Amino acid sequence: MKLLLINPNISTSVSQLIHDEAVRSACPGTTVEVLTARSGVAYIETRFEAMLGAHAAAQLAAEHHAGADAVIVAAFGDPGLLALREVLPCPSTGLTEAALASACLLGQRFSIVAISQRIRAWYVETVHAYRLEGRLASIRGLDESLTDIGNVQGNQGDRLVALAESCVREDGADVIVLAGAPLAGLARSIAGRLPVPVVDGVSSAVRHAETLVRMGAGRARTGSFAPPPIKPHQGLSKEVAALLAQAPGR
Amino acid sequence: MKLLLINPNISTSVSQLIHDEAVRSACPGTTVEVLTARSGVAYIETRFEAMLGAHAAAQLAAEHHAGADAVIVAAFGDPGLLALREVLPCPSTGLTEAALASACLLGQRFSIVAISQRIRAWYVETVHAYRLEGRLASIRGLDESLTDIGNVQGNQGDRLVALAESCVREDGADVIVLAGAPLAGLARSIAGRLPVPVVDGVSSAVRHAETLVRMGAGRARTGSFAPPPIKPHQGLSKEVAALLAQAPGR
Amino acid sequence: MKLLLINPNISTSVSQLIHDEAVRSACPGTTVEVLTARSGVAYIETRFEAMLGAHAAAQLAAEHHAGADAVIVAAFGDPGLLALREVLPCPSTGLTEAALASACLLGQRFSIVAISQRIRAWYVETVHAYRLEGRLASIRGLDESLTDIGNVQGNQGDRLVALAESCVREDGADVIVLAGAPLAGLARSIAGRLPVPVVDGVSSAVRHAETLVRMGAGRARTGSFAPPPIKPHQGLSKEVAALLAQAPGR
Amino acid sequence: MKLLLINPNISTSVSQLIHDEAVRSACPGTTVEVLTARSGVAYIETRFEAMLGAHAAAQLAAEHHAGADAVIVAAFGDPGLLALREVLPCPSTGLTEAALASACLLGQRFSIVAISQRIRAWYVETVHAYRLEGRLASIRGLDESLTDIGNVQGNQGDRLVALAESCVREDGADVIVLAGAPLAGLARSIAGRLPVPVVDGVSSAVRHAETLVRMGAGRARTGSFAPPPIKPHQGLSKEVAALLAQAPGR
Amino acid sequence: MKLLLINPNISTSVSQLIHDEAVRSACPGTTVEVLTARSGVAYIETRFEAMLGAHAAAQLAAEHHAGADAVIVAAFGDPGLLALREVLPCPSTGLTEAALASACLLGQRFSIVAISQRIRAWYVETVHAYRLEGRLASIRGLDESLTDIGNVQGNQGDRLVALAESCVREDGADVIVLAGAPLAGLARSIAGRLPVPVVDGVSSAVRHAETLVRMGAGRARTGSFAPPPIKPHQGLSKEVAALLAQAPGR
Amino acid sequence: MKLLLINPNISTSVSQLIHDEAVRSACPGTTVEVLTARSGVAYIETRFEAMLGAHAAAQLAAEHHAGADAVIVAAFGDPGLLALREVLPCPSTGLTEAALASACLLGQRFSIVAISQRIRAWYVETVHAYRLEGRLASIRGLDESLTDIGNVQGNQGDRLVALAESCVREDGADVIVLAGAPLAGLARSIAGRLPVPVVDGVSSAVRHAETLVRMGAGRARTGSFAPPPIKPHQGLSKEVAALLAQAPGR
Repeated sequence: MKLLLINPNISTSVSQLIHDEAVRSACPGTTVEVLTARSGVAYIETRFEAMLGAHAAAQLAAEHHAGADAVIVAAFGDPGLLALREVLPCPSTGLTEAALASACLLGQRFSIVAISQRIRAWYVETVHAYRLEGRLASIRGLDESLTDIGNVQGNQGDRLVALAESCVREDGADVIVLAGAPLAGLARSIAGRLPVPVVDGVSSAVRHAETLVRMGAGRARTGSFAPPPIKPHQGLSKEVAALLAQAPGR
Repeated sequence: MKLLLINPNISTSVSQLIHDEAVRSACPGTTVEVLTARSGVAYIETRFEAMLGAHAAAQLAAEHHAGADAVIVAAFGDPGLLALREVLPCPSTGLTEAALASACLLGQRFSIVAISQRIRAWYVETVHAYRLEGRLASIRGLDESLTDIGNVQGNQGDRLVALAESCVREDGADVIVLAGAPLAGLARSIAGRLPVPVVDGVSSAVRHAETLVRMGAGRARTGSFAPPPIKPHQGLSKEVAALLAQAPGR
Repeated sequence: MKLLLINPNISTSVSQLIHDEAVRSACPGTTVEVLTARSGVAYIETRFEAMLGAHAAAQLAAEHHAGADAVIVAAFGDPGLLALREVLPCPSTGLTEAALASACLLGQRFSIVAISQRIRAWYVETVHAYRLEGRLASIRGLDESLTDIGNVQGNQGDRLVALAESCVREDGADVIVLAGAPLAGLARSIAGRLPVPVVDGVSSAVRHAETLVRMGAGRARTGSFAPPPIKPHQGLSKEVAALLAQAPGR
Repeated sequence: MKLLLINPNISTSVSQLIHDEAVRSACPGTTVEVLTARSGVAYIETRFEAMLGAHAAAQLAAEHHAGADAVIVAAFGDPGLLALREVLPCPSTGLTEAALASACLLGQRFSIVAISQRIRAWYVETVHAYRLEGRLASIRGLDESLTDIGNVQGNQGDRLVALAESCVREDGADVIVLAGAPLAGLARSIAGRLPVPVVDGVSSAVRHAETLVRMGAGRARTGSFAPPPIKPHQGLSKEVAALLAQAPGR
Repeated sequence: MKLLLINPNISTSVSQLIHDEAVRSACPGTTVEVLTARSGVAYIETRFEAMLGAHAAAQLAAEHHAGADAVIVAAFGDPGLLALREVLPCPSTGLTEAALASACLLGQRFSIVAISQRIRAWYVETVHAYRLEGRLASIRGLDESLTDIGNVQGNQGDRLVALAESCVREDGADVIVLAGAPLAGLARSIAGRLPVPVVDGVSSAVRHAETLVRMGAGRARTGSFAPPPIKPHQGLSKEVAALLAQAPGR
Repeated sequence: MKLLLINPNISTSVSQLIHDEAVRSACPGTTVEVLTARSGVAYIETRFEAMLGAHAAAQLAAEHHAGADAVIVAAFGDPGLLALREVLPCPSTGLTEAALASACLLGQRFSIVAISQRIRAWYVETVHAYRLEGRLASIRGLDESLTDIGNVQGNQGDRLVALAESCVREDGADVIVLAGAPLAGLARSIAGRLPVPVVDGVSSAVRHAETLVRMGAGRARTGSFAPPPIKPHQGLSKEVAALLAQAPGR
């Protein structure tokens, strides 16, 4: 099985973190490939940055999905995921969607620990879009500016643990979700330090992607995740155009 | 006052409909300019198409917002609107947001009449994202394929009226929202035929944009609509890069 | 265009504030008339006081709406607004409804800054009745007794600004709504002092009323905002009786 | 124990129905007095009519509550109830609030059977205001005009039963609420004909009022149901003025 | 009238508290019998303990309901109540359900004061299952371990009052619910000390049970509270088997 | 890895279906053991039956969890699952929880196809308890009595497919969940016949259980899923008593 992970941001240091945790998490026999966005920002905190990431990820997915058994949008917030699910012939998931699915299997209410204050509004909207706000205990974030996005875990590890402890003690979290590709692998290293289960987005996405492939649940030929109706278009890359050339009801 | 309307789709016939209704709706002294996306699809029905439209609209907004007093995303679903609100120095709105604001001033529950069945899921998600589902009575859509997106009103006018009547009679709608730029101007022509108030997205957006300009409520310097934090980026057009170069707290 | 603003309270000093901000906000060519309730309380903080205000406002609207292009209930909480919308032949709005519509066009989550602690429960119920709780970040209120309702801005201006800042910083508000007719005009004077957009009820109501008139969306002939079915009544003023004598389906 | 029931409408025939069911429902030793509004309409179907009824009921309550152990607003929709709860020194309830409390003790989801189509929007808003929409299965109403409000049960009894049966079979109702004072006593006569428990507003209100009196839970001296803060007023009846003269924290 | 109260826990000291408050609350002519679970834990704080209590209560109800006019599950959280409502021929209620019904008749938002921190999650889920979260202001609990469950009121009375005061002052509670059978009778003794109405579960349950009996609303013969469809079973006590032998549509 | 599946019902024919689908779904190296309840009913449709199943499942889990890497409650509705999660030292899941997690990874809105009409209310409450109602498009069920619970697929296969098609076409389902252990394996056989992805509870539970084991997210030592506080108990089996003897904070 081959999984294609797409980092919708330009940070190759984060792509390396994603790759390492994906390899650690995958079943024997699963191979992982991580792509890094050609355009965009270092990491996504806002709606505008997410819009840029969604577009960059879609282009990469269009170019590289052939041969992959599943595609993973490898940023918290899942920029472009639901859009890709309409057009990709294989299963797809994202770090948020997958981490929340894991969290829901481990407890009733989860908290999200994030890399910044600013990112919280976007995460709230992401959880709301998934209609999982009823399971959300809180979102807490670091309040310092990030000087090295590839080394947040090293620089801020203790603060992140302290935030998680506050989520448990003050907000009633049953589970902690460590949010964002820059934190990939942190759950693995700190799990023993927290009094509740801890969830990582990359490992959740890898495992749930493997499950989706093995389930073979089939692709939507109708409904809101079928390919879009055929219609005129212009100015798109030939790879994106090819995704739009699928007959919806095939 | 100058309003910049951006059609995130490639259909110039729809841009003409937008332009005509915008001119009819604007106050004396307001000028309107309508831009058409350079890339994308003929009209948006799905999340993937909306993602393409959002990106195309953002590029046009980045290039052309200078000199505009307000920017309008001129497609129902408002692709990219909240993202643009973070980075544009002037007020912005979109057809859905504005039409729903109008509808909420005219009654408690509104129904949306749309150009296709497929588009309904995307509209539900748009209304949900605006947290206005409590005001939504129903969404009904045409069930025939659209052969000429610039002439839906002419080809399907009576069917659209019949759908609206069903929304009132069966779904309890207090107000009808005619959704989608291809229906721009229809509310004006059929208003007398329906037993409840009818709302048009383009005219609502023009009027509310004028109000936002005149209110001078100020721009967010903090919170989730302040400009994104400065961070590394690559591969973006110089106009988009300029939007990202604003100091958040300026 | 003529707008009729009805202060459902007896405070002529507040009516003056309403008048001044309405004049400042109205388009050229719009005239405003402000009426003050003949009976009721100095300002509304509770459900019982709102009930008194609704009744007084309805009587004034019945007597004076002829000749007005739109009617505005000029107290936060909009006492009687939805009731009047059923019976008035012209568009109507209120300070809360209009301010919330403005806020929703400026950000995703708004906070309300209010003149007292006691008033908060009534405001929560008002926002809930409009099914906009999903957009509400918080309500904060002054905690001192009000000795001069016509001069709250002067006496409490700095405290109100401080409350607004707390809403932004602690509650995640994207927009601040300054609530209550006694604060009419305050948004205009403090807007520059806050880091997010600020909304005033009176100016919002005036502008949205102008828009509703110009939209000409039509009046409900059926549904929940059509005139009530004709039925026996007694003991009503002749003006209210006249409102009830309209055929619903005319 | 003495219960004061206030019909906020002018129909003495309905007041007689209320009286008869109240007498049938009350405990031995409980006396009931039913007052009829001096002004208003024959029966309430809309927000405007409810506003008139609330004001008329408040005036009667102010005049006559002395000597009563509890006050009941005897119309579905409970016009003015929450307002009165702030100012009355004794417990109060209303037909909707009480019927819904009964229904919630008998099943998870209730349907409301009503006397007209038009009344449904107002009932939805009433249930929403009580934040009980999660328990509401449906509202179904008669679709004929009512020629004799005092004899709806006689004229429309079989149709009302058929509506209730549809609520059970099609809408999943566990309990039926027969709504509106004109249906007082119908639950008693048709209970055996329906396959689920049936609830009457008047008998529920009488019984719950008795319980509230016997509970002696105390009156709010603070919070949103304490008496309103003392403030200037004018133009009110001396009885209403007396209600407003109570010190909140007494 | 005879009421059967079932303590789903093994604490006879708590059963005594239940009995005493039930006797104080019941109407003349009502007799009360309190049974104590033969198996289970001293008091319920978690889902597992509630599951044990539900099963023990069901067995007692099956054995002893004959001759009772109503059955009360006498623990907060109402373990097994909705299950019993399907199979018992007489009305049933529980401490939470009944206390919340009382609270909803006394104010818009209630807070729950509980005997421990741990119990709060279970209470949140109970209120959620009743779809009454919109009425819930907060849940606050003691944070010390309970050494003598039959004497919590004596040991912790002042702390419980302080918690209730915080609910009113900080959380906006209109009503306080004192939760849990170990607090039976406390509302009666402290009511005067709190500035809002206070509700007790046992007295609420006794009074509402009396009302349900007197209402005679009838039993569900269809819908989700009708007896379960007849089907094979094994290993059940003869009393439980008898409950399952009822024809659903009898 | 060893998975323990517990059928909370007495039907060995259904246990065989569970076993067969679990074996088909499990990874190489995973062994499955299926236990059948010693007491209870043939299949669960109601709250009372679920309460019996929860208790029977808990007893089996207490007796047999040693040596298992994860425990699965193998009935839709997950009777007792959240209770077991508090006390079991290994991960646990259930058919509903797992199927819904799968469905949420495949689309935005799912419908549930069930074996009877009666079962729908219980399923609604289960989905509500998981706070996933926002993802639920509809629940449709067979309307014939089930004569052979072990052969529902054979007898009713075409009807179940037709129900699923209605969910897609009329209710807007993106994904179909085939609910109930008696349908274990049906998704596998009919997947190609439906135009959207189809999810099976048993295979989802097996796969997600494998993921939970491999994630090693850790067990709650605090919060609502930590072991219950130690307290007196009586009348419990020694295996259940052992579960209650765990120190919460170990």
